[in-house]
Amino acid sequence: MVVGIIGLGLIGGSMAIDLRRRGFADEIIGVEAEPVNAAAALKIGLVDRVTDLKECALESDVVIVAVPVGAATRLIPEVLDCFSSVSDAGAGCAKVVMDVCSTKEQLAAAVKSHPLRSRYVASHPMAGTEYSGPWAALSGLFDGQACIICDAEESSPEAVGAVERIYDTLNMRMIYMNSSSHDVHTAYVSHISHITSFALALTVLEKEKDEKHIFDLASGGFSSTVRLAKSSADMWTPILSQNKENILHVMDTYIEKMNAFRQAIEQEDEEAIRNLIAESNRIRRIIR
Amino acid sequence: MVVGIIGLGLIGGSMAIDLRRRGFADEIIGVEAEPVNAAAALKIGLVDRVTDLKECALESDVVIVAVPVGAATRLIPEVLDCFSSVSDAGAGCAKVVMDVCSTKEQLAAAVKSHPLRSRYVASHPMAGTEYSGPWAALSGLFDGQACIICDAEESSPEAVGAVERIYDTLNMRMIYMNSSSHDVHTAYVSHISHITSFALALTVLEKEKDEKHIFDLASGGFSSTVRLAKSSADMWTPILSQNKENILHVMDTYIEKMNAFRQAIEQEDEEAIRNLIAESNRIRRIIR
Repeated sequence: MVVGIIGLGLIGGSMAIDLRRRGFADEIIGVEAEPVNAAAALKIGLVDRVTDLKECALESDVVIVAVPVGAATRLIPEVLDCFSSVSDAGAGCAKVVMDVCSTKEQLAAAVKSHPLRSRYVASHPMAGTEYSGPWAALSGLFDGQACIICDAEESSPEAVGAVERIYDTLNMRMIYMNSSSHDVHTAYVSHISHITSFALALTVLEKEKDEKHIFDLASGGFSSTVRLAKSSADMWTPILSQNKENILHVMDTYIEKMNAFRQAIEQEDEEAIRNLIAESNRIRRIIR
Repeated sequence: MVVGIIGLGLIGGSMAIDLRRRGFADEIIGVEAEPVNAAAALKIGLVDRVTDLKECALESDVVIVAVPVGAATRLIPEVLDCFSSVSDAGAGCAKVVMDVCSTKEQLAAAVKSHPLRSRYVASHPMAGTEYSGPWAALSGLFDGQACIICDAEESSPEAVGAVERIYDTLNMRMIYMNSSSHDVHTAYVSHISHITSFALALTVLEKEKDEKHIFDLASGGFSSTVRLAKSSADMWTPILSQNKENILHVMDTYIEKMNAFRQAIEQEDEEAIRNLIAESNRIRRIIR
């Protein structure tokens, strides 16, 4: 199987490692806009060669689009256009393109009326670290984590099957939902926690002028809470922008909760503080 | 050396384990208001016996007060009162009492005019987990972490020396500051991150009615950000209440930052979103 990967960062690179190591990919063709990252991906051995999008689309059996969601919205139709130009395209096209992005509705809209829509499978492997680039790629990143497959009924059954084999190879648990539900649930469970970390980092950097104090006093708890604030602006800017409505809803609830704490503390209402904390402790039942 | 520990939870219990294992304590006397926890601490072998506060104060060389800060504010003067009743008390008293609480100004005020003030050393080992009780105690909890010693000039040099030997035994890095600075810096670096986690848990529990979705979709990032929301209400209620002024200041800055994000997202201002994230990324330089 020839696998094409557009975007050789943390996600694309980590897929490359395990798809090759576990025998799924015989050859991996990379596409990478940033020359330094392309050179690194070749040097590390993530990919066998680096080409342009068209060559990658024409020569790969499966193309994985692993770029920030703004660029993916533009590139996935381009990959499908390349598929159309292959002689056996149309009903007989056996090629598949998939993405790995964290928001889905705008992507779904961008491919909706493409004649080869059924060759695209929308997916979101929910794994990552706060680091980025080909140097951040690592084996085992996806093992045991959840992967959402969106709008599977819009894709041909064999295209979905090919993508499922990829995520089986990566040892992921698959969950199926439509794009719209995906964007609601990821806003609630993933996107808001990134925003709370970004805001925490901004706050501490502003209030604690002397970085040495942060370094000296940061306990494991602070480090854990602020960890996501290291996440890439290139990746997260289009996510927050594309999932605007769902994110604004969850942010409004979050700001309400912060204000409830603020009021309880200001009024020295220990019973109210205790009730808020005890209620939040319910998360123990769900998160290990 | 006979060590008394009042409060046999995560912190008191973990100190008991390593002070005994590393040869500092020959005997450990525990005091614990909760009978189930007292029985557990005896059964696990954290302490040799459980007594009341007076017996513990009279028979120990060093008393560690490891209870929530509201109770500590009441108990530390009681321990000093017990010291006064010993025949060689006063200038000749060789006993030491120390606390491990996360806020310091109100404690400092509570002991300020006690005749044996110099036998009390205020300290805050910045280590912990989100779990509590004697079952949560573990060896190595403090290794390599920071410990703040407050108002050292108010304590006698040998009392400070005894406490420094304890933290040396626990492999902690000591930092010295006054109570007022302590409460400012811990509000900035520690207390705010607990509040942001509590609010995150409350938000996700409210918005995501189906807990199965949280369980299925929670990635490592969400788990890390929400981890502190498992923290004990008994411990955190008095901290948030006692450090009110500093916490309100830092919460106001935090709410401003959240509103800045909200506005940038609402206006689909990708440049503003990118700038906020890139600015928050500066935390990479400080936190590993």
